[in-house]
Amino acid sequence: MVKVGIYGASGYTGQELLRLLLRHGGVEVTAVTSRRYAGKAVSDSYPVFSGMTNLSFMDASPEELAKGADVVFVALPHGASMEVAPRFLAAGKKVIDLSADFRLHDVACYEKWYGKHAAPETLGEAVYGIPELYRAEVKKARFVANPGCYPTSIILGLAPALKGKCIDTASIIADSKSGVSGAGREPRIGSLFCEVNGGFKAYNIGKHRHTPEIEQELSLLAGQDITISFTPHLLPVKRGILSTIYATLKTKTTAGDLLEKYRAFYRDEQFVRIYKEGTFPDISSVAGSNFCDIGIAVDSRVNRIIIVSAIDNLMKGASGQALQNMNLMCGFGEDTGLAMLPVFP
Amino acid sequence: MVKVGIYGASGYTGQELLRLLLRHGGVEVTAVTSRRYAGKAVSDSYPVFSGMTNLSFMDASPEELAKGADVVFVALPHGASMEVAPRFLAAGKKVIDLSADFRLHDVACYEKWYGKHAAPETLGEAVYGIPELYRAEVKKARFVANPGCYPTSIILGLAPALKGKCIDTASIIADSKSGVSGAGREPRIGSLFCEVNGGFKAYNIGKHRHTPEIEQELSLLAGQDITISFTPHLLPVKRGILSTIYATLKTKTTAGDLLEKYRAFYRDEQFVRIYKEGTFPDISSVAGSNFCDIGIAVDSRVNRIIIVSAIDNLMKGASGQALQNMNLMCGFGEDTGLAMLPVFP
Amino acid sequence: MVKVGIYGASGYTGQELLRLLLRHGGVEVTAVTSRRYAGKAVSDSYPVFSGMTNLSFMDASPEELAKGADVVFVALPHGASMEVAPRFLAAGKKVIDLSADFRLHDVACYEKWYGKHAAPETLGEAVYGIPELYRAEVKKARFVANPGCYPTSIILGLAPALKGKCIDTASIIADSKSGVSGAGREPRIGSLFCEVNGGFKAYNIGKHRHTPEIEQELSLLAGQDITISFTPHLLPVKRGILSTIYATLKTKTTAGDLLEKYRAFYRDEQFVRIYKEGTFPDISSVAGSNFCDIGIAVDSRVNRIIIVSAIDNLMKGASGQALQNMNLMCGFGEDTGLAMLPVFP
Amino acid sequence: MVKVGIYGASGYTGQELLRLLLRHGGVEVTAVTSRRYAGKAVSDSYPVFSGMTNLSFMDASPEELAKGADVVFVALPHGASMEVAPRFLAAGKKVIDLSADFRLHDVACYEKWYGKHAAPETLGEAVYGIPELYRAEVKKARFVANPGCYPTSIILGLAPALKGKCIDTASIIADSKSGVSGAGREPRIGSLFCEVNGGFKAYNIGKHRHTPEIEQELSLLAGQDITISFTPHLLPVKRGILSTIYATLKTKTTAGDLLEKYRAFYRDEQFVRIYKEGTFPDISSVAGSNFCDIGIAVDSRVNRIIIVSAIDNLMKGASGQALQNMNLMCGFGEDTGLAMLPVFP
Repeated sequence: MVKVGIYGASGYTGQELLRLLLRHGGVEVTAVTSRRYAGKAVSDSYPVFSGMTNLSFMDASPEELAKGADVVFVALPHGASMEVAPRFLAAGKKVIDLSADFRLHDVACYEKWYGKHAAPETLGEAVYGIPELYRAEVKKARFVANPGCYPTSIILGLAPALKGKCIDTASIIADSKSGVSGAGREPRIGSLFCEVNGGFKAYNIGKHRHTPEIEQELSLLAGQDITISFTPHLLPVKRGILSTIYATLKTKTTAGDLLEKYRAFYRDEQFVRIYKEGTFPDISSVAGSNFCDIGIAVDSRVNRIIIVSAIDNLMKGASGQALQNMNLMCGFGEDTGLAMLPVFP
Repeated sequence: MVKVGIYGASGYTGQELLRLLLRHGGVEVTAVTSRRYAGKAVSDSYPVFSGMTNLSFMDASPEELAKGADVVFVALPHGASMEVAPRFLAAGKKVIDLSADFRLHDVACYEKWYGKHAAPETLGEAVYGIPELYRAEVKKARFVANPGCYPTSIILGLAPALKGKCIDTASIIADSKSGVSGAGREPRIGSLFCEVNGGFKAYNIGKHRHTPEIEQELSLLAGQDITISFTPHLLPVKRGILSTIYATLKTKTTAGDLLEKYRAFYRDEQFVRIYKEGTFPDISSVAGSNFCDIGIAVDSRVNRIIIVSAIDNLMKGASGQALQNMNLMCGFGEDTGLAMLPVFP
Repeated sequence: MVKVGIYGASGYTGQELLRLLLRHGGVEVTAVTSRRYAGKAVSDSYPVFSGMTNLSFMDASPEELAKGADVVFVALPHGASMEVAPRFLAAGKKVIDLSADFRLHDVACYEKWYGKHAAPETLGEAVYGIPELYRAEVKKARFVANPGCYPTSIILGLAPALKGKCIDTASIIADSKSGVSGAGREPRIGSLFCEVNGGFKAYNIGKHRHTPEIEQELSLLAGQDITISFTPHLLPVKRGILSTIYATLKTKTTAGDLLEKYRAFYRDEQFVRIYKEGTFPDISSVAGSNFCDIGIAVDSRVNRIIIVSAIDNLMKGASGQALQNMNLMCGFGEDTGLAMLPVFP
Repeated sequence: MVKVGIYGASGYTGQELLRLLLRHGGVEVTAVTSRRYAGKAVSDSYPVFSGMTNLSFMDASPEELAKGADVVFVALPHGASMEVAPRFLAAGKKVIDLSADFRLHDVACYEKWYGKHAAPETLGEAVYGIPELYRAEVKKARFVANPGCYPTSIILGLAPALKGKCIDTASIIADSKSGVSGAGREPRIGSLFCEVNGGFKAYNIGKHRHTPEIEQELSLLAGQDITISFTPHLLPVKRGILSTIYATLKTKTTAGDLLEKYRAFYRDEQFVRIYKEGTFPDISSVAGSNFCDIGIAVDSRVNRIIIVSAIDNLMKGASGQALQNMNLMCGFGEDTGLAMLPVFP
């Protein structure tokens, strides 16, 4: 049994990790930390875990947690993670970091969008953890920067089109919609039921911090610098991201041709599902699973491709993908603990 | 008191009309029709109306309804309306038609998107009922084609930019999200609570029937033919449409400059609210009211304008706007019966 | 124009009051206070009010607010209100207090359930503001304690049965379900969208602080001391309370007989609607209005009455009823500003 | 591999069965039937199954389906099931019937609540499939009548109290609230998103067809005839039932004592979780799992026990419990394919 610790387990991504790990089969969760709930039984704070675990939240230093763990998930907010992750690496542990702190390769870019970085020397070691693009690197990695939720949906949605040189790279617009769990479990007025239910809004237009992460990966895929328009919206659902992505096609192409390219690109991927022509994913069809579902249309009147990409933001957009990375890093089957079907209705 | 009839009152737009008319003050609702509920008291079919009206649904011909009405709202599905509206006109009534049947000026265009038109000769008489653009015509009209919900949000969102020649007309993308009431009250699997709640999807990508209506009006505003990309999505909310509209700016411009143009354009409009720079509407801020709220951002990195436009699809997107048109046609104050604030939370 | 102030206007009940008062027609809102938002324009904090008011939130003492107001609504949490309301009375103002601080006639009872009372001498002056039971007193009052949301639904639901001596007073069980706005706008984990949506739970079983208020009024109606079982639940809706109330009938009676008694009891009440036999209210049928809708069944197999009573917790359960009280205290028509129909869907 | 067929797989319980069976590990689903979708690939009708199965819906007779199946789940509406289930039994198959047709032992009682029974002679053979009460019988059974959703929550909630003779059996009131999936996937106006969302109502008060099923089992537990009050309500959630159950205690007892009895009663049950004193289940804490969570309070002022019992209506209330029964009938571990944790948020 691989021993696993979760550093910062009281938020939604931490809980989701715990839910998955308790049913993984090949790991033992040895410790979970939380300042807010230190000393409390996990099952008291989260009744979903009643009878499922005897773990209590600890308020432990990285070094203390490291003693009993081979692998550590760091599920802290950005800014906090950069102080902690290097200490797990120093202790010789495999680390999967769910924050934004180690996703960008360029320190200057990080500091422009997020502020001062405390461990810039560690940036170079982190592998950007989308297995569909970086599987070989993840397998060898001891440090994975787990991608953001919006970026995962957009990068997977665009990768075949960019690799295939199908689209005008200056024309990309990603209109994304996320469920509320993406905002975390902090008690904020903007996340209250009465503020969100029955509503829908755009936010951080043109300045969301996931933008440089998306552009970094799209540029690597295209082999040239890409700048996009990215507009996030807040959906009144708990889980799920759906990105509607627009780009101008370089040549006249049909949806059928493009779908064939997409199917070829993701041929061996068990977590990416390409839809039949004329059909498009619904968040409902991925929620509760690790799938990324993709549908494609071509608006021939204006020669644009419209890509619709859907994930569960807590699964493929965070904890599910983190576990997929862990499986690769530790030699488990890639879908171990991740083979569940979406829960619908 | 102006005598008003509603032909086809059992759907959500019919109900909403009745709700508004019962508190208008200057009208008397003399008859409401419904095949499905013929003979039943309105308050039995719709308990919200308990004690508010003694009306019963009738199954009447247009001619019968016309006998007791000065103004008639036709709230039938497209295809059905074209058979009925001309008969009210023939009876000398003022008619506001809420279907798509009389919104397009070009018969060929109608028949391409909808099918055979039964009353093409009547098309020319209908005024497209967005008072903010066609107030003078509406005042004199005896026949108004009430706009679609998506078109209202997009046309009002783009009008100042198009009139002001600010944007590249080939670059327009409208990514729109609608609440479920837009799908009507027909019992369809796709509108069931369990199918919609917790979900989100795009539908009719590149082929929604509102497209030609939107393009007709944008082209008139721009003085040139415009083709757009329009993607509708289904939101798990009851009321509201939010459109996120993208276009390339012709010149370097700031959001501040554009907002000034928008404020000038809508200076005298009581139902259009332009937001301060950096703030954007939420569906919650218009639901239950006749407002269209608009916010604007400029993504200077790619020189695009992003317009966010929000309405209540049953109010400004249907019955509210229909009443606004009736007020103009009958000489009432334009906001009579429409001055309510949004209901939040 | 009557000059009105709202002391503590930043919560949901304060906002709802403002929404109603801005469309009342006979009042002018002269000032609204909020510590959290002091100095900010109301329309900046609450975009629903964009263009509807030039008011800004003040951080003012009761004496300052009193200078420009004839009537004051106090919308503070319990405990805070008792410090403030007496100062408005001392300044000669009419006061409607929306907290629990002045609803109980018995100081000892208050202190058992809530803690120390700072102004016990003022308790005696407050009229319990359910106009359907205390209209004459409210009309003459200068100080009204506005009832709680749960109590309003339960007291109105039981009043005719208790007055008519129909039920065994030891057998009453009220199983109530409330929307989330009843928990206020404080940022608490338990009120987050992700915690509430898709969920449903009971809370404070057998010890909710509304219990003594309900029992006080039921006892007065019955002319004897009544103890009930009261279980509140949290519904994943924004607005609305539905109480399902059980009691054993003293004699064999039919639903029809009981409905007749209810109709007679509420004959002249414009805000209470008694349903036909076999039909029962839905929260949807009252949300957005000041109605209390009541349906009655008799389970003859066990000789129990089941009363279903529904209100909008922010309207008849709080701000709507507060305005109804103000109308009576100031000589306005009782439904002034309250005649709106429910908003459905 | 045990070969399994689902007769009537197009509704929500059929889909849920398929979701569970595809991940069971010990079974192969050989056929699924649906008249509505005959000939269509399951993954076309239900995109959640994309890439997960090659099954297509068949329109087959029971005899045809029986050829390739050892075990058959019948997921038809009541009335239809009674025509079909006996034919599977005649073919020598193990049958789990999810309808109400074989749950009642008394034909007269069935016919009073449901109408004519087509196969009364088969009633005697069906085991009522709550494993926590009838495990030994289920293990030996070839025909199990899978319990209703409301009954499961109420019977499990009351069993220890009734067996322990703790309560006055004439005083039982069950106030139950169910998610919308309980109403099935039929396109009905009452199940539309716009009718349900934001609403809440009671229905079928005192006459819901689950009443005799509940009373049958409670009576068997108590060893005497029991008549209850049962009020179902419709919750605006997709999954979940929460029952709040009231009864008068025979003697002064504490919640602690009762909880001890409950814990003892369910000591060896892996799907029943008894909560700590002062804590109560939320539907969110069981949704997506096969758990029944139970909390208990005593209102000592009136000497009543209040039991709160929560299940996922599609899991422990239908398909999960059906699989639990199949596991017992076929010699699998009872939790095979059912060990998933609740999905929260």
